[in-house]
Amino acid sequence: MEGHDQILQHCKFEVPEIVFGRGLLSQVGACARRLGGRKVFLVSDQGLFNAGWVDQAMHSLLDAGLSFVYYDQITPNPKDVEIETGAAEYIRQGADVIVGLGGGSAMDAAKGIAILVSNGGRIRDFEGPDKIIRPLPPLVLCPTTCGTGSDVSQFAIINDTERRCKMTIMSRCVAPDISLTDPDTLETLPDEYVCTTATDALSHALEAFFSVASTSLTDVHAIKAVRLLSRSLVKAVQERRPDDLENLSRASLHAGMAFSNSLLGIVHALAHPIGGFYDANHGSVNAVLLPEVLRYDLPVVTEKLPELAWGLGHMTNGDTGGAVEMVQETVESLLDACGAPRSLRSLGVNREDLPDLAEKALKDVCIVTSPREADKKDLLRILEKAY
Amino acid sequence: MEGHDQILQHCKFEVPEIVFGRGLLSQVGACARRLGGRKVFLVSDQGLFNAGWVDQAMHSLLDAGLSFVYYDQITPNPKDVEIETGAAEYIRQGADVIVGLGGGSAMDAAKGIAILVSNGGRIRDFEGPDKIIRPLPPLVLCPTTCGTGSDVSQFAIINDTERRCKMTIMSRCVAPDISLTDPDTLETLPDEYVCTTATDALSHALEAFFSVASTSLTDVHAIKAVRLLSRSLVKAVQERRPDDLENLSRASLHAGMAFSNSLLGIVHALAHPIGGFYDANHGSVNAVLLPEVLRYDLPVVTEKLPELAWGLGHMTNGDTGGAVEMVQETVESLLDACGAPRSLRSLGVNREDLPDLAEKALKDVCIVTSPREADKKDLLRILEKAY
Repeated sequence: MEGHDQILQHCKFEVPEIVFGRGLLSQVGACARRLGGRKVFLVSDQGLFNAGWVDQAMHSLLDAGLSFVYYDQITPNPKDVEIETGAAEYIRQGADVIVGLGGGSAMDAAKGIAILVSNGGRIRDFEGPDKIIRPLPPLVLCPTTCGTGSDVSQFAIINDTERRCKMTIMSRCVAPDISLTDPDTLETLPDEYVCTTATDALSHALEAFFSVASTSLTDVHAIKAVRLLSRSLVKAVQERRPDDLENLSRASLHAGMAFSNSLLGIVHALAHPIGGFYDANHGSVNAVLLPEVLRYDLPVVTEKLPELAWGLGHMTNGDTGGAVEMVQETVESLLDACGAPRSLRSLGVNREDLPDLAEKALKDVCIVTSPREADKKDLLRILEKAY
Repeated sequence: MEGHDQILQHCKFEVPEIVFGRGLLSQVGACARRLGGRKVFLVSDQGLFNAGWVDQAMHSLLDAGLSFVYYDQITPNPKDVEIETGAAEYIRQGADVIVGLGGGSAMDAAKGIAILVSNGGRIRDFEGPDKIIRPLPPLVLCPTTCGTGSDVSQFAIINDTERRCKMTIMSRCVAPDISLTDPDTLETLPDEYVCTTATDALSHALEAFFSVASTSLTDVHAIKAVRLLSRSLVKAVQERRPDDLENLSRASLHAGMAFSNSLLGIVHALAHPIGGFYDANHGSVNAVLLPEVLRYDLPVVTEKLPELAWGLGHMTNGDTGGAVEMVQETVESLLDACGAPRSLRSLGVNREDLPDLAEKALKDVCIVTSPREADKKDLLRILEKAY
C-alpha cells in the first residue's frame, strides 16, 4: 500500500472491461467463452435461482457451448468456510472459469474461490493489500443489486468466522476480467434491498469523492453516481419503474469505478467490523453511519462541496457553511425518504461493543484514505451518535 | 462493428490501466518489467530525444534491469513503410515488449508495430474494425502531447502511402496494457503543438459527447475534459504554467477514455482523409473543422446542451436557441484565443479536392456515430464553409 504522500501526488486508475445493458445476462456465456473457458464454476444464491436469473445464466452458458458446475453454498457476508468448500469443489470438478451472479456476497465469494484455486492456502492468508501471488482464473461478475461495486472493484470482503470479523482483500488481481450488468435483474430485488444496496452505492460515491486518494478520474464517476441516485433513488424504491432501477444499477457501477480506485473512508472502516461481528446487512449499517460520518468529514472538505452540491441537484453561492448544511440535509432526507434504517440499535448492535468496534475500525484499510484523521475517541463518538 | 440500434441500447466500456502523475516517466521501466518484458522496443522521435525525455525513459528501463532497442524512424502521420520496417527490426532484435513515447505518431507507430510482429502481413491488412487475430506483445504508451488519446484508445491511425489516405485500425487489442502519462513532458512541447494537440482533445471530447454511442460512462469523461480545457487551454498556451499544462494532459486522458468507447463523428471522418492526403497536422485540421461541424450538429443534440454548457462554465435557463449559440460562441472563442488555425486554405488544402475528400469521409468509420446523418452534399458544404 502506498503512503499518503504517494497517493496524493500520483494517480492510478484501473477498471475491468464493462458491459452494461438490459437483457445482457444472455451474453454471460459469450463472455465466459471469450475468456477461454470451457467449464464454468457458476456462483450464485437461492434467491436468484428462485427468481429465474440463474436459469437464464445457465441457458446462456449452454448456448455458448460451455458446461458448468453450479455452486450456491454461500450466505450474506460470505464466510471463509464457504469459500474454502467452493474452491475444493472447483478443483474437484476441473472448472476453468468463474462466473459470479448476485450481490456482493456471491461476487465476493466468487473472488475468494478464484484466489484459492490458483494460490492455495486458506482465505485468511490473503487478508490486506497485495498478498496474491498467482494470477486468478478468468472471472466474470454480474451484479444483481444496486450497491456492492464488487463487479468492478479491487476488493473482496470475506467474513472470518473464527475471529468474527470481515477481512478486506485488496489486489488488482481480484478485479474481474469482465463486469456484466443487466439492470433487468433488479426487477425481482425486494424493496428493502433496493434501498439498502443503493444507499451502499451512495456511501461509496461520497466516500470515494472525499477520499484523500481521489483524482479527477474517480471524481467524475463519484459525482455521476450521486446525480443518478439523487434523481432516482426514492422513485426507484417507491415506484420501481425500470428506468429508475436502471439508474440505480448505473449509479452502482459509477460508484464502484470511483471507490475501487480512490478507496473509501470512515463509514466503511466502521461498517466492516460491525458487519463481521453481527453478520449485519452491509447497506443498512452504511446508511446508519453515513450521516454521522458526513457531519464529521464535511467541515474539512469544503473545497469540493460546490461540485457535490451540483451532483445533488443544488447550486451553491460559495457560502461554505451553507454548502455543508445543504449537503448534510440532502443526504439525510434521501435516506429518510427511501426508508433506510437510522440507528445502530435497530440493527442489533450492543452498546457495550462500541469501544471494541471503534478499536477494530482503526485497523481497517479504509481508514487510511479518510479525509479527516480519526482516533479511537473520534470513532467512538461517531458510533455513539449513530446508536 | 455493431449497428446503430445495438450501440444505442447497450454499453461497453474498456480502458487500459492508467498511471498519471508528474515525474512518473521514471516508472516506465517498472511498468514494462511488470508486463513480463526483458528486451524493450522503444519507439519515439528525434524531438523527444533532443528534449531529453527519451534519455529519461532509457535510464528507467536500465534501472529496471531491462535492455532495449531504440527505434525513431517515424514521421508525423506515421507511414505504413515505417511500421513495417519497425516490425522487422523488432523481430530481428528479439524484443518482447513495446514502449511508445511521444505524440499520436509515435504511439500509433508502436501500435502498428505491435500488430505486425504478432500477426504478420502488411499493416493495411488490418484496416477497419476487428481484423486482428493474435494478441499483441505487451504495450506501454506514454503520451507527451495533450491531444491524441492514442494511449487509451482502441484505435491506430496509419497513413497508407500508396493510396495517400489514413487507415483506421479499430480493435480492443490495440489499447495498450498500460497508459502512463507524465505531464512534465509537456514542458518542452512547442506552443504551436500545445494548441493543436489540445484542440484535438477538445474535438475528441465534443464528438464523444454527441456520439450516438455515448453513454453515461463516456459522458462523464467527455464533460470533465471540456471543463479542464475551458479552464486551462488558453492559459496553458499563453503562460505555460505547469498546473495548466497538467490540466491539458488530464483533459487529453479524459477525452481519450470517452472517445475510445463512444467513437467520434464528422470532424474526424473529414480530418482523416485530409490528413492522409496532405500529410497535414491532425490537430490543426480538427480545429478548422470543429466550428463548422458544431454548427451542423448542435441543432439535433439540444437535449445534451445544458450539461455541456455547465462543462464550458455557463449555466443555461433551458432556452435551446440560447444554448446552441452559447456553446458555438464559447468553442469558437476558445479556438481563437489559443491561436488555432481557422481555414483549410491556410493548411494547404486545394479547393478542387474538396468533393473527393467529402467522398472519402463518407467511408470513414467515424461517420457512423455522428449524431446527425450527412450525405456527400452535407459534408461538402461543411468543407466549403471551413475553407
